[in-house]
Amino acid sequence: MSEIGTALARELGPDRVAEDAATLTAHQVDYWILAHLRARQGRLDGPPACVVRPQSTAEVAAAVRIAQRHGVAIVPYGGGSGVLGGAVPPAGSLVIDTRAMHKLLELNDAALWVRVQAGMMGGVYEATLAEQGYTGGHFPQSIDLATIGGLVATRSAGQLSTRYGNIEDLCLGLEAVLASGDVVRVKAVPRSSTGPSLRELFLGSEGALGIVTEATLRIFPKAEHRAMETYAFPTMAAGLEAIRKIVRVGWRPAVVRLYDAVESARNFTDWAPADQCLLLVLSEGPRTLVDAEMAACAAACAGAVALGAKPVEHWLGHRNVVPSWDTFLDREMLVDTIEIAAGWDRIGGLYDAVVASLQGVPGLLVGSAHSSHSYPQGTNLYITFAMKPPDFADAEKHYLDAWGRVMRASLDAGGTIAHHHGIGRLRAEWLREELGTAYPLLLALKRALDPAGLMNPGTLVARG
Amino acid sequence: MSEIGTALARELGPDRVAEDAATLTAHQVDYWILAHLRARQGRLDGPPACVVRPQSTAEVAAAVRIAQRHGVAIVPYGGGSGVLGGAVPPAGSLVIDTRAMHKLLELNDAALWVRVQAGMMGGVYEATLAEQGYTGGHFPQSIDLATIGGLVATRSAGQLSTRYGNIEDLCLGLEAVLASGDVVRVKAVPRSSTGPSLRELFLGSEGALGIVTEATLRIFPKAEHRAMETYAFPTMAAGLEAIRKIVRVGWRPAVVRLYDAVESARNFTDWAPADQCLLLVLSEGPRTLVDAEMAACAAACAGAVALGAKPVEHWLGHRNVVPSWDTFLDREMLVDTIEIAAGWDRIGGLYDAVVASLQGVPGLLVGSAHSSHSYPQGTNLYITFAMKPPDFADAEKHYLDAWGRVMRASLDAGGTIAHHHGIGRLRAEWLREELGTAYPLLLALKRALDPAGLMNPGTLVARG
Repeated sequence: MSEIGTALARELGPDRVAEDAATLTAHQVDYWILAHLRARQGRLDGPPACVVRPQSTAEVAAAVRIAQRHGVAIVPYGGGSGVLGGAVPPAGSLVIDTRAMHKLLELNDAALWVRVQAGMMGGVYEATLAEQGYTGGHFPQSIDLATIGGLVATRSAGQLSTRYGNIEDLCLGLEAVLASGDVVRVKAVPRSSTGPSLRELFLGSEGALGIVTEATLRIFPKAEHRAMETYAFPTMAAGLEAIRKIVRVGWRPAVVRLYDAVESARNFTDWAPADQCLLLVLSEGPRTLVDAEMAACAAACAGAVALGAKPVEHWLGHRNVVPSWDTFLDREMLVDTIEIAAGWDRIGGLYDAVVASLQGVPGLLVGSAHSSHSYPQGTNLYITFAMKPPDFADAEKHYLDAWGRVMRASLDAGGTIAHHHGIGRLRAEWLREELGTAYPLLLALKRALDPAGLMNPGTLVARG
Repeated sequence: MSEIGTALARELGPDRVAEDAATLTAHQVDYWILAHLRARQGRLDGPPACVVRPQSTAEVAAAVRIAQRHGVAIVPYGGGSGVLGGAVPPAGSLVIDTRAMHKLLELNDAALWVRVQAGMMGGVYEATLAEQGYTGGHFPQSIDLATIGGLVATRSAGQLSTRYGNIEDLCLGLEAVLASGDVVRVKAVPRSSTGPSLRELFLGSEGALGIVTEATLRIFPKAEHRAMETYAFPTMAAGLEAIRKIVRVGWRPAVVRLYDAVESARNFTDWAPADQCLLLVLSEGPRTLVDAEMAACAAACAGAVALGAKPVEHWLGHRNVVPSWDTFLDREMLVDTIEIAAGWDRIGGLYDAVVASLQGVPGLLVGSAHSSHSYPQGTNLYITFAMKPPDFADAEKHYLDAWGRVMRASLDAGGTIAHHHGIGRLRAEWLREELGTAYPLLLALKRALDPAGLMNPGTLVARG
């Protein structure tokens, strides 16, 4: 057993600690395709030294203190569903797997919030609430693969965010363990004016500033009514313009998803007319609100062809199906998704620029996008690309080329390089340009909260 | 001329610097009644050394660098409308008056945001937008007395916040000058997942972590339609329950204000039935939304007596009338307001506790409250108290006694000590208990961003 493992077993008990090959290997990657590619190519860093499975915040704190004493890097690991390598541990590190901390601690019906441990899986969380007549309103595609703590720590967004908000709107309070082992609790209140929002330090912290151990999240009574419609537009620009009109005056249908012609044909084969961009609309809430909202959406979509609710129902049934990377890697293909965002004045041009730029990637099979999270200010683009690199040994280079093109286009459009997947390891180098003159602030936070640099080094803040 | 004034005049030009007695005196207090009381009693700290009026961010940065070289404390001063002493300068400090930086720099119609300099007055900002068919959606009572920078730096809330959001919802990006003189810009994007929100460091920073010099704020097209109604409830509890029902299912009328019987009689004399609590409702937005929302509010208020739109119109016409403290001090009276908030499960009890507790303050004339900012999770209480202390020489002691009782009650209810006025100097000692285990995080931020402790010392972070 490793030195750190021995110390942890002594302090927390041997049942909390695992160093068998299967456990270490299982924690050596997350859902980042490049980590899987590197694993196949034998280019992955060495395994972590040890995986610890704390059952309480106090045990997380103890594990952090022990790792600090031994000078060992600390990587929190939730569901392992991150797609940017944020939980890919450095060789010899300590992985803190939070999934044994999976209780819903408190449900406050009057104040509509719950306290939940960080290791509860998103799907279990939602099912637990649904049984009692609520929804958490947070439906990332990874809901069944991700923990609540991971969704908080990566600043996630859910498929129904236009109505229910993103994680920063949903998370009212939290508990985190700092690099020092100190436990901080930011209490939940409806709203306060008590200095900077300290909760915001941990939303998006990705283990680099602390480890989220508990969250207090808004919940919602189950919606009284739901309605759905699909519209077909001849171009992305026309569809984007319809969304802009809807959200501009304050409507916020839970779902407004616009697929480009490539994705419409691929995902809605039974319904999509040739070369059309499908817009899925789903409104839920009080019946009178839903009726008014659906009518307003119809007015904003005047001129488009209405296709009915079936495509939306189809999407609801298939929305969380994600392929195993092995399917593609076995065929010497790479597939990935990139989510970016920009203002309404720039988003149409950004879509065109990204799709055109991806065509320059050697071996590109497809580069397509949809918009799935809209705001009065702008919207996101969720880009999917698939490629069969001419020389698979060089696949990483071509993969990073594709990423670089999209990052460059986002920055040039004054947009953001990341709408909701976070930074991880893959985007850390790009974060410097994204934040610009504000980047030193992030470095100052990192130094202040992680002076020894042992908290998930290389994630969020690039090394060196 | 002071040493710092001489250095500033040399670098920025003599027209930027003032040290005449009238200017120094005008900047020696803000809108905190205790500062005015102390001024009358000759107990105020000495005046600042100098007032500088920069015309650009570069000049703010230069002034900060010069003050740091001279070891002089730096206090940003906007409209001087803060009611907690946040801009009351320590003796010998440098006051940076931002009001010469008052331009609207850019209006983006498609992305619905504007860039505005920090020194623009709130009322001018709103009027400028209104001329072009927009609203900023931000209507604090101090709108005509406060700068945009002050509203950002104190984490303010507006009277129409239930629809348009609070300043943290409205502020998409900003520029700030750090203690080092470095300028940081946090760019505006619709939404991003790029680590902790660095913008949030300056919302509520109150000059203690940096000086806000520019903000990018959401704007909204002028609402298509507006409707108003007033309901009379026999008790605060019944009125609070109606609001809870309205917001619980997702309605968000721009205004839902509930006055207790004392304030209803005082503010709505012509309409309020005896011993009734008036609830003002104002909905604005697309006509179909307003119609549905007003109907939902009526349903939630079933049993209450509808009094029509007149009280709401009256409130709209008088909402920003604030008395001069002199009116009261001349009569040896003290009047103040305190805004707190708590979850729906605790707010009724908190109202009762606060009103009862204030009765124990010697010389109390009245202690009353209204709720003006509601959320699905809870609401605020905006407390007004007036007192004629038995011995006016001891007025400060009794004033702090009243404050202490309200702070204690809020904390005991698991609420927050500040809904939207901020911390300033008055609440700084209470912030420690408010933040609890998270307070050291605030201290770490302060140390990281203001190592010499010259940024508005004593505001936000208590000395010592």
